[in-house]
Amino acid sequence: MNIPHRLYLTEDQMPRQWYNLRADMPCQPDPMLDPATLQPVTEEGLYLVFCEKLAHQELDGSTRYVDIPEEILEMYRIYRPSPLCRAYQLEKALDTPAHIYYKFEGNNTSGSHKLNSAIAQAYYAKEQGLSSLTTETGAGQWGTALAEACAHFGLDLTVFMVKVSYEQKPFRKAVMQTFGADVTVSPSPTTGAGRRILEKDPHTGGSLGCAISEAVERALATPGCRYVLGSVLNQVLLHQSIIGLEAKRAMDLLGEYPDVIIGCAGGGSNLGGLIAPYMRDKLTGAADPQIIAVEPASCPSLTRGRYAYDFCDTGRITPLARMYTLGSGFIPSPGHAGGLRYHGMSPILSRLYHDGFMSAVSAEQTRVFEAAVFFARQETILPAPESAHAIRAAMDEALRCRETGEAKTILFGLTGTGYFDMTAYTAFLEGKMADTVPTDEELQRGFDSLPEVPGRA
Amino acid sequence: MNIPHRLYLTEDQMPRQWYNLRADMPCQPDPMLDPATLQPVTEEGLYLVFCEKLAHQELDGSTRYVDIPEEILEMYRIYRPSPLCRAYQLEKALDTPAHIYYKFEGNNTSGSHKLNSAIAQAYYAKEQGLSSLTTETGAGQWGTALAEACAHFGLDLTVFMVKVSYEQKPFRKAVMQTFGADVTVSPSPTTGAGRRILEKDPHTGGSLGCAISEAVERALATPGCRYVLGSVLNQVLLHQSIIGLEAKRAMDLLGEYPDVIIGCAGGGSNLGGLIAPYMRDKLTGAADPQIIAVEPASCPSLTRGRYAYDFCDTGRITPLARMYTLGSGFIPSPGHAGGLRYHGMSPILSRLYHDGFMSAVSAEQTRVFEAAVFFARQETILPAPESAHAIRAAMDEALRCRETGEAKTILFGLTGTGYFDMTAYTAFLEGKMADTVPTDEELQRGFDSLPEVPGRA
Repeated sequence: MNIPHRLYLTEDQMPRQWYNLRADMPCQPDPMLDPATLQPVTEEGLYLVFCEKLAHQELDGSTRYVDIPEEILEMYRIYRPSPLCRAYQLEKALDTPAHIYYKFEGNNTSGSHKLNSAIAQAYYAKEQGLSSLTTETGAGQWGTALAEACAHFGLDLTVFMVKVSYEQKPFRKAVMQTFGADVTVSPSPTTGAGRRILEKDPHTGGSLGCAISEAVERALATPGCRYVLGSVLNQVLLHQSIIGLEAKRAMDLLGEYPDVIIGCAGGGSNLGGLIAPYMRDKLTGAADPQIIAVEPASCPSLTRGRYAYDFCDTGRITPLARMYTLGSGFIPSPGHAGGLRYHGMSPILSRLYHDGFMSAVSAEQTRVFEAAVFFARQETILPAPESAHAIRAAMDEALRCRETGEAKTILFGLTGTGYFDMTAYTAFLEGKMADTVPTDEELQRGFDSLPEVPGRA
Repeated sequence: MNIPHRLYLTEDQMPRQWYNLRADMPCQPDPMLDPATLQPVTEEGLYLVFCEKLAHQELDGSTRYVDIPEEILEMYRIYRPSPLCRAYQLEKALDTPAHIYYKFEGNNTSGSHKLNSAIAQAYYAKEQGLSSLTTETGAGQWGTALAEACAHFGLDLTVFMVKVSYEQKPFRKAVMQTFGADVTVSPSPTTGAGRRILEKDPHTGGSLGCAISEAVERALATPGCRYVLGSVLNQVLLHQSIIGLEAKRAMDLLGEYPDVIIGCAGGGSNLGGLIAPYMRDKLTGAADPQIIAVEPASCPSLTRGRYAYDFCDTGRITPLARMYTLGSGFIPSPGHAGGLRYHGMSPILSRLYHDGFMSAVSAEQTRVFEAAVFFARQETILPAPESAHAIRAAMDEALRCRETGEAKTILFGLTGTGYFDMTAYTAFLEGKMADTVPTDEELQRGFDSLPEVPGRA
């Protein structure tokens, strides 16, 4: 079969349902716990923070396929399907017998896969009659995606943007504002959480943990407002299954089945989405592809973390989840430029990893940027540093194939583009980037922040 | 017929030939003149600056279809076809009976259509055994595109980047460097032209004219090196015909034919490419679509310029071309943020405009940015300011259709994305953008710079 460089599904071929991985898992993720009572949260208990449909999706472990509402499909059709790409140029440059495919999610203005869940979350909020949302953003991909979605559905949006990013990435802020979002530097004097932190240290650069606290506080204090989050949550993995469902349908059309599936992993939204239908094959015994999560050596939650109950935020106000975590007190080295800075990992992926259904590797950032530049020069796409973790692992696998002569089929997720990450690229090109791997002592300090949860693993 | 939001041609449906508009023009553009002799240039005379195949394409007015070499097709397949998009959301927001389509060229790392010609020019240079290229870049889209192409074909590239852009857009520079280009701030002490300007004014912000002079000087002084240009030239319009050929094939598949075709016009590379096959219909009498060029009111070469022989650069070292021009001495107001700053216009488009085959309108930049923001919020794509000129005119046409009830089919070119133009967006959003329309006196100063060419119109 003549395999094209890019395969776009037609509208008719696009999936109309999301796939809920939990429905096929032999062991469910442990329940989220209320931080006050340490008892499992209820759907109704989540309504204060999440809108109702999303709270339901968060806790629904049994519905296998969820119909995608027509209004969401209509938005997906504006920027989807994303292409399934055959990396002919990369294969040639690596002189590998492997077939390398990537699912490219960067061809939209948010520059990443985040838009897939942003649209869903904004839609359900609008459907419930809410008028506004709050969220936090670090690097800004999630904030941009949500700003696009809220502009479409006519929702007001307040984004608390970590101060150091706000100052370093004025263009990201400007993109969000172009889509009508109110972008507030965090910590801000507009919330109690922000004021408390500013009183302690007026010159702080802020943190994601603080921004989450401010966003949640604002949502709780504002009528018709809810808080939304771009990764980690079960609902987000559900929405992101569109990535894998499209990829699988496209590969099926080509008569290809991946031997190896590779995704970068921060909170897990991209990896969980990409692997979803292939993991189903694995869980049901239909096939046995190798599934590899790639994380930064600077923030190695799967490869060096603990499977334990922890807070989802560093402010310790969210429910607790059992996941692979470095402890909510763990902060990656400031020298870490490659994204994927989250201390924990999606509870679904954590469970699957714990039960042996996937493996994980970590990569030092100089090797990640080396792969990013090599890939860009071959395939003409400038990858986000996050995505480049998957590129690194895919290249390593392809180079092993060159040694062994195996013509493996490799599929990896290219989650986004790196236009707003050029400071890191420049540091790499100028030889000013160092690898930052935490010592055991540094990890221990993170583990020391883990909460005690009596009677739970 | 059910018309999808995005139509991607398959690889089999992609054009394998470029279309040379000149072959069907009743009146050819006037010949380029050698600046020293004022006699028509010969193909061989261009070999010093251009590589041979490109010099041939520049002067070849008779070959109707030119085979695209397989190596170029292979590169096109990495980022093409570009989608033909039906603007359902925009139509709904404007409440118009018009059908609005746009051909979106921004889904590649250069962020614009410039890559189409960059690949062709780099390929022919490589084929001739050259080892390096030089060019200039202002905003940086062309420099980025050429850097990608040179990385692929293994050519060294030196980009002379206008100093003020170099300092304002460090990220553009970094992208080019990531693709291996040597980016030199212009004026630079590395060329005679640069040194002369620096001696006069060490603090100059540079200009495109100066950067061209430096790039040409460097090419002439370097063995195995040639100079390349991203717009205006006949060869560039030839390569860019891929845009229109794809668009027409896609619309044919949908059973649609545009009543109105709209493109922004700076040097003319996008407009010339987009309209190519439709202009052929017009020239051969097969159909009679309306074709509209949109230019900034700040730099109105078609609507307020003169059809005269002029230099292509402000340094006055290039051949002269007869075109609509404001005079190579014309400099748009520094308050002009919307791109399309070139003083002249493609000689092919100038001839067609002069002969009545297309019309032109100008747009003030605040109305252009207003359209850009409106479009972004509906269609989720953040447009380049240049592209937003076409959006403005398409929206105006669609609004007229709302008044008249006509269900016209409108096709416009969305040439690229605006990620590197956020300073201008922010100025617009904050109400700090003013319209800058040159007075008749200011235009006259530009016309005073027109060269005298005895015996020619």
